[in-house]
Amino acid sequence: GVLGSGDFARSLAVRLVCSGFKVVVGSRNPKRKASLFPAAAEVTFQAEAVKKADVIFVAIFREHYSTLCDLADVLVGKILVDVSNNTEVNHHKESNAEYLASLFPACAVVKGFNVVSAWTLQSGARDGNKQVLICSNNQEAKRTVAEIAQVMGFTPVDMGCLSSACEIENIPLRLLPAWKIPIFLALGLFLCFFTYNLIRQVIHPYIREQKNKLYKIPIEVVNTTLPCVSYVMLSLVYLPGVLAACSQLYYGTKYRRFPDWLDQWLQHRKQIGLLSFFCAALHAVYSLCLPMRRSHRYLLIETAVKQAVEKKMTIWVEEEVWRMEIYISVGIIALGLLSLLAITSLPSIANSLNWREFSFIQ
Amino acid sequence: GVLGSGDFARSLAVRLVCSGFKVVVGSRNPKRKASLFPAAAEVTFQAEAVKKADVIFVAIFREHYSTLCDLADVLVGKILVDVSNNTEVNHHKESNAEYLASLFPACAVVKGFNVVSAWTLQSGARDGNKQVLICSNNQEAKRTVAEIAQVMGFTPVDMGCLSSACEIENIPLRLLPAWKIPIFLALGLFLCFFTYNLIRQVIHPYIREQKNKLYKIPIEVVNTTLPCVSYVMLSLVYLPGVLAACSQLYYGTKYRRFPDWLDQWLQHRKQIGLLSFFCAALHAVYSLCLPMRRSHRYLLIETAVKQAVEKKMTIWVEEEVWRMEIYISVGIIALGLLSLLAITSLPSIANSLNWREFSFIQ
Amino acid sequence: GVLGSGDFARSLAVRLVCSGFKVVVGSRNPKRKASLFPAAAEVTFQAEAVKKADVIFVAIFREHYSTLCDLADVLVGKILVDVSNNTEVNHHKESNAEYLASLFPACAVVKGFNVVSAWTLQSGARDGNKQVLICSNNQEAKRTVAEIAQVMGFTPVDMGCLSSACEIENIPLRLLPAWKIPIFLALGLFLCFFTYNLIRQVIHPYIREQKNKLYKIPIEVVNTTLPCVSYVMLSLVYLPGVLAACSQLYYGTKYRRFPDWLDQWLQHRKQIGLLSFFCAALHAVYSLCLPMRRSHRYLLIETAVKQAVEKKMTIWVEEEVWRMEIYISVGIIALGLLSLLAITSLPSIANSLNWREFSFIQ
Repeated sequence: GVLGSGDFARSLAVRLVCSGFKVVVGSRNPKRKASLFPAAAEVTFQAEAVKKADVIFVAIFREHYSTLCDLADVLVGKILVDVSNNTEVNHHKESNAEYLASLFPACAVVKGFNVVSAWTLQSGARDGNKQVLICSNNQEAKRTVAEIAQVMGFTPVDMGCLSSACEIENIPLRLLPAWKIPIFLALGLFLCFFTYNLIRQVIHPYIREQKNKLYKIPIEVVNTTLPCVSYVMLSLVYLPGVLAACSQLYYGTKYRRFPDWLDQWLQHRKQIGLLSFFCAALHAVYSLCLPMRRSHRYLLIETAVKQAVEKKMTIWVEEEVWRMEIYISVGIIALGLLSLLAITSLPSIANSLNWREFSFIQ
Repeated sequence: GVLGSGDFARSLAVRLVCSGFKVVVGSRNPKRKASLFPAAAEVTFQAEAVKKADVIFVAIFREHYSTLCDLADVLVGKILVDVSNNTEVNHHKESNAEYLASLFPACAVVKGFNVVSAWTLQSGARDGNKQVLICSNNQEAKRTVAEIAQVMGFTPVDMGCLSSACEIENIPLRLLPAWKIPIFLALGLFLCFFTYNLIRQVIHPYIREQKNKLYKIPIEVVNTTLPCVSYVMLSLVYLPGVLAACSQLYYGTKYRRFPDWLDQWLQHRKQIGLLSFFCAALHAVYSLCLPMRRSHRYLLIETAVKQAVEKKMTIWVEEEVWRMEIYISVGIIALGLLSLLAITSLPSIANSLNWREFSFIQ
Repeated sequence: GVLGSGDFARSLAVRLVCSGFKVVVGSRNPKRKASLFPAAAEVTFQAEAVKKADVIFVAIFREHYSTLCDLADVLVGKILVDVSNNTEVNHHKESNAEYLASLFPACAVVKGFNVVSAWTLQSGARDGNKQVLICSNNQEAKRTVAEIAQVMGFTPVDMGCLSSACEIENIPLRLLPAWKIPIFLALGLFLCFFTYNLIRQVIHPYIREQKNKLYKIPIEVVNTTLPCVSYVMLSLVYLPGVLAACSQLYYGTKYRRFPDWLDQWLQHRKQIGLLSFFCAALHAVYSLCLPMRRSHRYLLIETAVKQAVEKKMTIWVEEEVWRMEIYISVGIIALGLLSLLAITSLPSIANSLNWREFSFIQ
């Protein structure tokens, strides 16, 4: 059974019908709404629908939950699935599912399907996340809903008892929260270093020697900026650990909570580290592209021609040769090590390591 | 208990014995077959074996299930594990496990272990997939079989009730079905563009100017072909979304099913996108290899020598320099963005993103 | 309830308090220890604590389990969570949890939380592994503990019945055991080939022609060494499969166990293969860096100048050009294929492939 006639209710009905379930839709105005639902779904009055169904998806807004109170008698013993989402994180004191459970204590309330978009529901779980997080205080009801999700092509994930509902309701509102600060940090650092390098490599020679080196902007200036960003970000990954250790030494205890800013910082380490790796990898690709450029080729030919004309045959500078060989060699090794770190932060790899192995690699 | 004496039955017995279980094998001809099984497993007549065992692995073909009907009395209350596979997808109307359950309604039938190869069973789960998908209508029986799988070194995955058996039986028959069309598409596109580039870069100059440029085939022609394939594939990823939106606008409803070809196309988007990324990455590696080639070196020296002899010192072409710098710079940024897309299609990453985050990145 | 006042007990108490649980700590000397615990946790005598709590975390050493026997009466019907670790793999005959269960048969013993470090417990699961492996013979107790773990921010993983406790207790003692042999093997091979290449490319020309080519060590010598290591490692991946097949042919049976050395070898194939890929990828990066070096640039200019001075205009050697084009082209294709292999060994990808698909790709 599906209560409601909104976008989500209709998508849910489409998917349930496609998965071979018998669907009955409860609406306050079944005649007007019937055309919105697939033909195989029976659209009737709410009380009728509830009587016919064992599992009822409550696809209406939290504000209208109280309108269902008239149906309290027919709902006794049924499984109610709360699929609702909020518009803000922690909008209400208690989660929608817990509120529903408090209204209908004689029902088995299950939270689920809210992490799935109406589009995914309707067109089937193709790419992206196929997980449906489910929680309930009633084991039997949870299992029934999990099996419905399985048949619909999703992967049910048991999230424990109904007190997890609040967490589940907050998930669809999330938009990469852990990445916001690190990304703005990286962008800020990039801008600073880019300006500095622009002045040093392009504007300064132009003013002093009237040399037009604007062509250096898209590759060479970016390429000297990236490793600076990468270095600073990498040091920001290891710094909070040192600060945390200092704070513990200072207060003489390991069991005092860190100040909030340090705690926040410790939580963003992984993201900062990955951005550092991203910059380092881009730097590697930029560097490898250097000899491909026309400008590099022209400079090379120019030098060769000058050399041939001026007849100076010894251009080999031992020190310069060694410096470059060692720069490149150390760079490759650093990138190789950073890659290992980046790989261990993939969730499926991290889950196969114990904490000793993880901190050994770090 | 294991019923049957085929390849799978023997591997199963070997593994169960190795994992510390007491194994009794039921065969119609125990004397002749005993030598095939490990010494620690007791080989006896079917009825004997069934009496002694609580959990019975039915390692015989679906066609012979009915021969077990004589044992119906001794089987009452036992757990039957159906490990069978079919030779074709959806060969029979109902799954083997459901058929077995209909023959022995007094038994708890569990589907499982069919996704594991005889080789993996025998030698232990080393690499590759360690999951054993299990489904049953009897919770207790399912849990018992899951614990046996755990002790054997596999990871049991609960797939819900017995109606999932059909899906589980189809899994071992699958051979990358979602990849077939995208791979043939990519190969077809590659051939077309390769022929065109071969004619343009090698055959045409040979016919017109009698220049032998065959050496360009392995790297340069391939390298101009790859980005074309990558572009077309990438556009094929985003095109069906546009078509789907148009179809919805045309029919004025979001709840009409898409035509089958569009649905198929929408389902293959992820694979097409990954192949597009693979071509783009190969193109990047090929491009980076260009300055490493002897031919590049020779052409460079040749130009320098000509320049020195002909005494024309100004070879710097501002426009060419800028064009190359911008080409390369845009290429790197595009590759960086495509990498992010490719990383989010890793299952473990996709499962940690909600749909808003996923579509934001896309 | 938490019994014990060590590092782990305190971290556990901190985390439980932070997650909103009511915590009572049982200590033999509550007055002296109270200051070590967060203020919100009640610290009292062991018997008192046990009476007040339903779920009791036993955070004391295995050696002191017997001291709890005095509390046997008050412990009846309680859930005991064994969080202990050993100092050696398989130190005792039976796991700590099974030993605890044998001491208190009237309690529901659950193994869990031992895979989590005190640091992670205290500061919350940030990065790395968030899984808490749980096993118990009592389903209800296991579920209760799983829900506590969920609320504390961890991901509970059901590992079946208490006989898995031994396996769970060995996990934190593990330090990449499957990687030790392959890594020493790779290092050994690297040293051998490096010495050979050093003699051939640097020492030999120095002795014979007094040419100083020391600058080749950091990049060119390493770069000729890496593919040798990669080749040998790759052949070591496929060799044991051949040997296993030979052994089966020789003994005329598929059901004889392989000798131990072959079994060990078969188990390390994945790690050897990944190291082979790592060497191949490093070789690719090193090779791509070759034209970036000053030494390469100088040699190029030198050749060009010599050419211009000596007026020999034909430096194009058709054979050399072709050899290089084919080398590079085959190298890129090999790297592309090895990448696919490496990607399929990511746990989340491997779990989505059936064994036919996996062996097809291999």
